[in-house]
Amino acid sequence: MTLNVALLGAGRIGKVHARAVNAVAGARLLAVADPLGEAATALASAYGAEVRDVAAIEVATDIDAVIVCTPTDTHADLIERFARAGKAIFCEKPVDLSVERVRACLKVVEGEGATLMLGFQRRFDAQFRAARDAIAAGTIGTVEMVQIVSRDPGPPPPAYIASSGGIFRDMTIHDFDMARFLLGEEIEAVQASASVLTDPEIGRLGDYDSASIILTTASGRHCSISNSRRATYGYDQRAEVLGSKGMVAVANERPVSVVTATGDGFCAPPLHDFFMTRYEKAYAAEIEAFVGFVQSGRAPSPGGDDGLRALVIAEAAARSITEGRTVRTNEI
Amino acid sequence: MTLNVALLGAGRIGKVHARAVNAVAGARLLAVADPLGEAATALASAYGAEVRDVAAIEVATDIDAVIVCTPTDTHADLIERFARAGKAIFCEKPVDLSVERVRACLKVVEGEGATLMLGFQRRFDAQFRAARDAIAAGTIGTVEMVQIVSRDPGPPPPAYIASSGGIFRDMTIHDFDMARFLLGEEIEAVQASASVLTDPEIGRLGDYDSASIILTTASGRHCSISNSRRATYGYDQRAEVLGSKGMVAVANERPVSVVTATGDGFCAPPLHDFFMTRYEKAYAAEIEAFVGFVQSGRAPSPGGDDGLRALVIAEAAARSITEGRTVRTNEI
Amino acid sequence: MTLNVALLGAGRIGKVHARAVNAVAGARLLAVADPLGEAATALASAYGAEVRDVAAIEVATDIDAVIVCTPTDTHADLIERFARAGKAIFCEKPVDLSVERVRACLKVVEGEGATLMLGFQRRFDAQFRAARDAIAAGTIGTVEMVQIVSRDPGPPPPAYIASSGGIFRDMTIHDFDMARFLLGEEIEAVQASASVLTDPEIGRLGDYDSASIILTTASGRHCSISNSRRATYGYDQRAEVLGSKGMVAVANERPVSVVTATGDGFCAPPLHDFFMTRYEKAYAAEIEAFVGFVQSGRAPSPGGDDGLRALVIAEAAARSITEGRTVRTNEI
Amino acid sequence: MTLNVALLGAGRIGKVHARAVNAVAGARLLAVADPLGEAATALASAYGAEVRDVAAIEVATDIDAVIVCTPTDTHADLIERFARAGKAIFCEKPVDLSVERVRACLKVVEGEGATLMLGFQRRFDAQFRAARDAIAAGTIGTVEMVQIVSRDPGPPPPAYIASSGGIFRDMTIHDFDMARFLLGEEIEAVQASASVLTDPEIGRLGDYDSASIILTTASGRHCSISNSRRATYGYDQRAEVLGSKGMVAVANERPVSVVTATGDGFCAPPLHDFFMTRYEKAYAAEIEAFVGFVQSGRAPSPGGDDGLRALVIAEAAARSITEGRTVRTNEI
Repeated sequence: MTLNVALLGAGRIGKVHARAVNAVAGARLLAVADPLGEAATALASAYGAEVRDVAAIEVATDIDAVIVCTPTDTHADLIERFARAGKAIFCEKPVDLSVERVRACLKVVEGEGATLMLGFQRRFDAQFRAARDAIAAGTIGTVEMVQIVSRDPGPPPPAYIASSGGIFRDMTIHDFDMARFLLGEEIEAVQASASVLTDPEIGRLGDYDSASIILTTASGRHCSISNSRRATYGYDQRAEVLGSKGMVAVANERPVSVVTATGDGFCAPPLHDFFMTRYEKAYAAEIEAFVGFVQSGRAPSPGGDDGLRALVIAEAAARSITEGRTVRTNEI
Repeated sequence: MTLNVALLGAGRIGKVHARAVNAVAGARLLAVADPLGEAATALASAYGAEVRDVAAIEVATDIDAVIVCTPTDTHADLIERFARAGKAIFCEKPVDLSVERVRACLKVVEGEGATLMLGFQRRFDAQFRAARDAIAAGTIGTVEMVQIVSRDPGPPPPAYIASSGGIFRDMTIHDFDMARFLLGEEIEAVQASASVLTDPEIGRLGDYDSASIILTTASGRHCSISNSRRATYGYDQRAEVLGSKGMVAVANERPVSVVTATGDGFCAPPLHDFFMTRYEKAYAAEIEAFVGFVQSGRAPSPGGDDGLRALVIAEAAARSITEGRTVRTNEI
Repeated sequence: MTLNVALLGAGRIGKVHARAVNAVAGARLLAVADPLGEAATALASAYGAEVRDVAAIEVATDIDAVIVCTPTDTHADLIERFARAGKAIFCEKPVDLSVERVRACLKVVEGEGATLMLGFQRRFDAQFRAARDAIAAGTIGTVEMVQIVSRDPGPPPPAYIASSGGIFRDMTIHDFDMARFLLGEEIEAVQASASVLTDPEIGRLGDYDSASIILTTASGRHCSISNSRRATYGYDQRAEVLGSKGMVAVANERPVSVVTATGDGFCAPPLHDFFMTRYEKAYAAEIEAFVGFVQSGRAPSPGGDDGLRALVIAEAAARSITEGRTVRTNEI
Repeated sequence: MTLNVALLGAGRIGKVHARAVNAVAGARLLAVADPLGEAATALASAYGAEVRDVAAIEVATDIDAVIVCTPTDTHADLIERFARAGKAIFCEKPVDLSVERVRACLKVVEGEGATLMLGFQRRFDAQFRAARDAIAAGTIGTVEMVQIVSRDPGPPPPAYIASSGGIFRDMTIHDFDMARFLLGEEIEAVQASASVLTDPEIGRLGDYDSASIILTTASGRHCSISNSRRATYGYDQRAEVLGSKGMVAVANERPVSVVTATGDGFCAPPLHDFFMTRYEKAYAAEIEAFVGFVQSGRAPSPGGDDGLRALVIAEAAARSITEGRTVRTNEI
């Protein structure tokens, strides 16, 4: 049985998901909605889909699922509407920048018994997945410490920063989710330090561009996260997990493995310069997983609760800086 | 203007090319021919194409180009037929196992002014291409010596060996082409040593499974090739080029970059176990290039002459072993 | 002019320094003191030196310098005695486990105008030094963030733990010094999280075996440190520095670079299993540097103040855990 | 019982061996001989040895062993003299450039029952040794194919080339020995190709600077060797061995493991620029092994026969080029 999908939002990430839907056997992109008519039309026609508005999709009987790629401040409302409309929902992170609003939204989802999957695509990357598989296989014994290095090639434009919710909710949130994914235990305490080192404009907007965070679980496992909005050598995405029997490390995926050696030494090209090329396959795999969850009736993972927990950690991190103390997640 | 393509042969590599054709903007798979009706039907229906027989494709006015993926012994005949029929031709290597037959076939192609591209997909791999780009950019100065290591995960079935034309025409031929691609100069002399080390059955069939070859050009550049039909750690595909100013090296592409460290040491997973997964993108890129050559009217590269030259080297290698001497390509 | 050196303490590290002294052109081991007479005799005879007691060395006119390798609780007293005796002093870290005692001791050193060098050997390792040279050369621009991973192959015996001053004063202190060495700016604030994950006995002794620390400087540079007393794959010593123009990374030095590939994958042997083999050359280089400082009259680096600053950070880290807050170094 | 050693030849490699002798427990450098008096005096005084002439050493009752580091054309004579004088002999390779002369010399050695060890230091390098240990442990199964890449940073001065015996006897000879060391079977057939690519002066002197060689054993194992007198990126010394169960690879040993990443990519420093720094430890280890062989009475390895066999392969390689054919070692 083919899953008929509507896409809400025909922007950058919407295009990625549109392509992914059609690449999945058993799914079909039926409709695209976007307030920007041209964008909707272009994307719909590229994939043989129709342009419809959100209201029409909401009541459509031929649509089984929606993929929400609209601006963040519309996510919670759309999730609630489509939960009530009985559609399965895949939503880009975050549900909302406010923990309170997320909690309210998830209550609606739960009340409706709706299917909601969150877009933490890194969980579907072959590298990070292989690390978790190694952990699950017992190769490194009991997990003890996780290190995550996550650096963007360059800062986003100021306008983006202004509405992003800050580095922790926008960028580190993926690392918070990855920390939970790799630690296998909930975060109890958060310590953070952050500063503005790449562009003073980021500071004027009340945000940071460089951050170090320590997460601690109840049993004493740690995760260290290092973030920067600028890495001249490319999109730096690494993690390693130390366990009682060993370590598993995710190195950077390289677009080209060629090395040139001269009198100056041995040189390899920079890393990917964009998260979409780095995670190209992961984006496709998460949509494939979403289709699988909906068709099998199994609860999607990562779900709404995963989004909430990552957001709570983000808020704790921000508070740790302003209050100069270790903040417990149960304070949020 | 869309290029309408017919596929001859719906086997393993035919499927790869069918998918590639449809992924190229500006190309469309219109027809599939295969003596095995079921295979043709399955592949045609998967891509919205029709099943037609070779004769029908030959006279079809709606077909611009053919992709030949039939058994080797049919290649030369099909190339001649479709050259005469005015279709552009992409043909899997080799044109034929006989140098004489290839020469005759290429004369027909030339006489008809037909477009013929040969399937040396490795030239379209991002890694090997990056190496040649580095050479072209002058990074390593004048090319002096090339090393190619090319090892299969395991030997093909005896039936395949029996009709393969032998290791040099079947397997090393890709390395001979890569040698020419990287050396930038024609091969003048060939020395080879080969033996049967993995399976005596291969020897009973008159073939080898392990070979070392030295190619020398007129200006004294060398290429060393090392082949084995068995590498337990996966499909091993490397090359390096030494020049007057430095070296460029193509390392193996790894499916997963995860490393696990325990008391036993640091371990990474094996390489790809199949040439089709290793060269997945290269196969798509060569078809995209073929479509581009046909649409632009430029001569395809690699063309029929590249196929011939690689085959001549293969024959010289075989002769070097039986005669225990350095064999010049102009003897063939 | 040859520098005549006496060694105080003929234990494990004393032997390393004895060998180093004699390998330096222009230095000569003249005397060895150790309450354990046999140890002193064995070491002295191996290098053609005499056995003397501390008091004799103190008044000896033929001794220019002492190397202090005695137990930690004797360091401060010995430094003061030999400072007053006019000898140049190389002392293994730490000067003392008490910040107050160290401050008092350094006042004596300063008052006497004595030469005191501290044994942070990692500063003399070719790898870490190359990283700092790259920073000094401007290769990575302005330093922003440092990551240090420092893990022992296995925990020391309980008796050692009991008198070690705790993981921060004993183990992390090297990382605190390295942080200062690489950051190029003093530490202002310290956040730490620590736990007992490898052996409950360590917890019973009031210590930790696993720690994550964030150091922040006045200008907002960060350093993350990850410590564990157990890494099954060997002595793990890495660092990387992110700057405005790039990154420099110190990978683990491997005793053997051989890789074995089989159907199980690609495997390299574990790391060094002991700090003395890993830092063998660094120990020799620091003694060579000490001899150079004394002979040239230049102030030694790292000096007593470097020892003090690292200890202050250690104390701030310990306090950060007990008080659950960010601790400023100027509180100590 | 201490082994008393005399050194013949106080040049570059003589200094290396002098230091090595004194670093070995149980050996002592007693005398140094060199026609260049100053060199002998300098080296002798640096290690507390005496200057003596060759004749005096020959009859000295206090000398147990000699290390021969004189020019190549004196080796065979000196070996014969000291074999007759009852001294154990360590001689730098080669015994002589003439196979006939070597055979005569080894007969004398055999007749006298003398102890003769040849200076193929690469056998004592930790990396190459680890490769052979892995083979011996059965990790890669039965050995099938060996690849050796051996490239100098730059060509030696013309005067050296002129008296070197040619690239095969001077440079590749180490690779021929390594091929035997790793293949575990004698070489039966040799094919070679060589040219002058780096400096025409080398050609005028009748030598080559770039060579590719294939060695084949009776059971069909192969070894490919790639030589160049110029590698801008440093002294390139690699080997890999393919076996029925896997591969073991010796990568280049790097003086520094630091990597710098910028917008231009990831860069590591060049390799060692000199064979003496690359093989520093191997030189010490071979002298230690020599002392051990003499003291234990076991036959030294590599011995005179190893030197002869490598020379025979070198001669076969040279003949393969001039005669354009595969040359069997039993022809030499």
